[in-house]
Amino acid sequence: MARAYVTRRVHFNAAHRMDNPDKSGDWNRTTFGKCNSPNWHGHNYVLEVTVAGTPDSETGYVMDLSELKQIIQERIIAKCDHSNLNMDVDFLRGVLPSTENLAIAFWQQLEPALPEHSLHVVRLYETERNFVEYRGE
Amino acid sequence: MARAYVTRRVHFNAAHRMDNPDKSGDWNRTTFGKCNSPNWHGHNYVLEVTVAGTPDSETGYVMDLSELKQIIQERIIAKCDHSNLNMDVDFLRGVLPSTENLAIAFWQQLEPALPEHSLHVVRLYETERNFVEYRGE
Amino acid sequence: MARAYVTRRVHFNAAHRMDNPDKSGDWNRTTFGKCNSPNWHGHNYVLEVTVAGTPDSETGYVMDLSELKQIIQERIIAKCDHSNLNMDVDFLRGVLPSTENLAIAFWQQLEPALPEHSLHVVRLYETERNFVEYRGE
Amino acid sequence: MARAYVTRRVHFNAAHRMDNPDKSGDWNRTTFGKCNSPNWHGHNYVLEVTVAGTPDSETGYVMDLSELKQIIQERIIAKCDHSNLNMDVDFLRGVLPSTENLAIAFWQQLEPALPEHSLHVVRLYETERNFVEYRGE
Amino acid sequence: MARAYVTRRVHFNAAHRMDNPDKSGDWNRTTFGKCNSPNWHGHNYVLEVTVAGTPDSETGYVMDLSELKQIIQERIIAKCDHSNLNMDVDFLRGVLPSTENLAIAFWQQLEPALPEHSLHVVRLYETERNFVEYRGE
Amino acid sequence: MARAYVTRRVHFNAAHRMDNPDKSGDWNRTTFGKCNSPNWHGHNYVLEVTVAGTPDSETGYVMDLSELKQIIQERIIAKCDHSNLNMDVDFLRGVLPSTENLAIAFWQQLEPALPEHSLHVVRLYETERNFVEYRGE
Repeated sequence: MARAYVTRRVHFNAAHRMDNPDKSGDWNRTTFGKCNSPNWHGHNYVLEVTVAGTPDSETGYVMDLSELKQIIQERIIAKCDHSNLNMDVDFLRGVLPSTENLAIAFWQQLEPALPEHSLHVVRLYETERNFVEYRGE
Repeated sequence: MARAYVTRRVHFNAAHRMDNPDKSGDWNRTTFGKCNSPNWHGHNYVLEVTVAGTPDSETGYVMDLSELKQIIQERIIAKCDHSNLNMDVDFLRGVLPSTENLAIAFWQQLEPALPEHSLHVVRLYETERNFVEYRGE
Repeated sequence: MARAYVTRRVHFNAAHRMDNPDKSGDWNRTTFGKCNSPNWHGHNYVLEVTVAGTPDSETGYVMDLSELKQIIQERIIAKCDHSNLNMDVDFLRGVLPSTENLAIAFWQQLEPALPEHSLHVVRLYETERNFVEYRGE
Repeated sequence: MARAYVTRRVHFNAAHRMDNPDKSGDWNRTTFGKCNSPNWHGHNYVLEVTVAGTPDSETGYVMDLSELKQIIQERIIAKCDHSNLNMDVDFLRGVLPSTENLAIAFWQQLEPALPEHSLHVVRLYETERNFVEYRGE
Repeated sequence: MARAYVTRRVHFNAAHRMDNPDKSGDWNRTTFGKCNSPNWHGHNYVLEVTVAGTPDSETGYVMDLSELKQIIQERIIAKCDHSNLNMDVDFLRGVLPSTENLAIAFWQQLEPALPEHSLHVVRLYETERNFVEYRGE
Repeated sequence: MARAYVTRRVHFNAAHRMDNPDKSGDWNRTTFGKCNSPNWHGHNYVLEVTVAGTPDSETGYVMDLSELKQIIQERIIAKCDHSNLNMDVDFLRGVLPSTENLAIAFWQQLEPALPEHSLHVVRLYETERNFVEYRGE
């Protein structure tokens, strides 16, 4: 009953800015610096989704990766790719789009569509130099 | 009198959209598809600038890369990083920000600041999968 | 009339082996070593296709990359992905599938589907350590 | 008594196909899609092996990485590189070569050759977009 | 009270050699091989530092990454970049500069400057093929 | 008579410093900054060597890459890997080890060992952000 961790890597391009609407412009500029830049900036986000489980004895798969890819496509990429993460995405309404909050929101989008307890970690790269993991803790 | 080609790689994060203001919304949507998405999207751009010349006999350098880095920083990165390429950058006013047009505009920004005939190529990656070179031709 | 070089990067996974059917088994084993391994081996090939031209004044594009992607998809990827390059691909019949010969064959597949004189270079990575360029020379 | 995790990354190129011989051709085609392609396909596999332990006070090493490299070379690479994973590898006989099953099989090959309880994780990349971890659970 | 893991990636270039001064030259040559090369060698080290915590409700950040970057810059990069790790770095005096020992030393430098219990893992790449993780265990 | 360009990528780790012995310490410190750091620093150099030619009709190869690898190994890697580029390498005696000068010196080492006029370009990465090409011009 070996347990393996299977990861699928996808990408999307989006605009965002860090701006807390409950705070003043000064607070936002001081807190977020250039990430508060008024007319948005953007990233090539890279998303890695890891599911855990026992490989099926007939298929050798923990999960069919084309099925996992399809779930990520429908629940994340179709909504976030070439979008404005502050304005355009239904499940991000009211979410300050830090990499942390995006990773948590993506987990919440994916978890109900996956076999129970199978989602292990969501890793989101904002750039090659900055990334966040969320494990449902 | 050996001639070598020296490249410096930098990066910046920006928002943009493809939208030709002289055309109708329909034309723009049909022509540019999701790249015309109204509320912008963005990229982690990677810029490689190559200068050519003979290594100096005293320094071994075609050009001091920290000087090249400084020129790129002042003329490109300080203006484009965390910006909206359609709205925020003086030297991109009126430029449709395709990767092609950006690469050409970056050449025009850099060329006058570099030793005559030394700029060899500007390579701009919009993503890992799409990039453009401009050689001043 | 600026001339820019636009590149699209795609990938496919395929099996192959180096084996010249006009030669003896000994010659093939000596010449190709482990690349002659009888039951095939394979690679994650990465293909970069570069087209050159003047950016269109209305679109800012040398060529719509989604169109280029579609041509590569139909003429190369649909035939080569998850295939055996020695056995399965019509346009590779009789071609010894070295990276060199593949790059040349890919050029010949792509060139007639692209605007005249626009194809500039085909670069094919067999691994991260080995790659070939063909420029139609 | 600090505990550190040391990883060595290696690579090999191999052919495989997903095909369960206990099932019908239809089942295999439906279940595995293009991964069932009859004449094989292949990958540039990347394997990362992590061992855990306390750095030796005289060498500063958890384990000499050239020794780890040698064990991986003998037990995995020498058998799998430029091979057909369905046909050529003794320790994969009867194993459906999914990335999951390969990672588990590689663990079983490596674990007995390493200091007791030192093997921490085997990570196998089939492509840059798909990878599996096995931790002996 | 979600818990996320935030990583910042930085780099530095340094010289080192593996040489235990309490041992003979023969022991060092036999034990460390080319890593004992007398006139030093060097690496482009890549350092990833991960902190864990709950994203702040006002900023969306576990920690401001520019603050984390500043701490890493002052405590590690300013001392190690373009240095000799055996000779030049105060906090490495008497430390045999294996990747393991460096990762542990970097943890010890960073941990007191970070919020209590927030440092999760230090990952240090000596090359793309060799890296070490230390988690404070 | 198609002409293809075949590249082999290799790597080595070495120490160096920028210091012109004909100049004063002040000149060197001012000119080279931290690259003049007295006790050396180092890099994971990546070297790409490109040869050009017509693929052989019997082998499909411009040149057997294992032969090219062997020439690079003997003439460059065996001498430079885990070395001090200022002190240890015979063919670099008196050469200020800038990336430019190293690329030129590597060309001079490789050119006589390769088929006449086949060496096309030597590309040397000092880091992922800085690289130099030399084409024998």
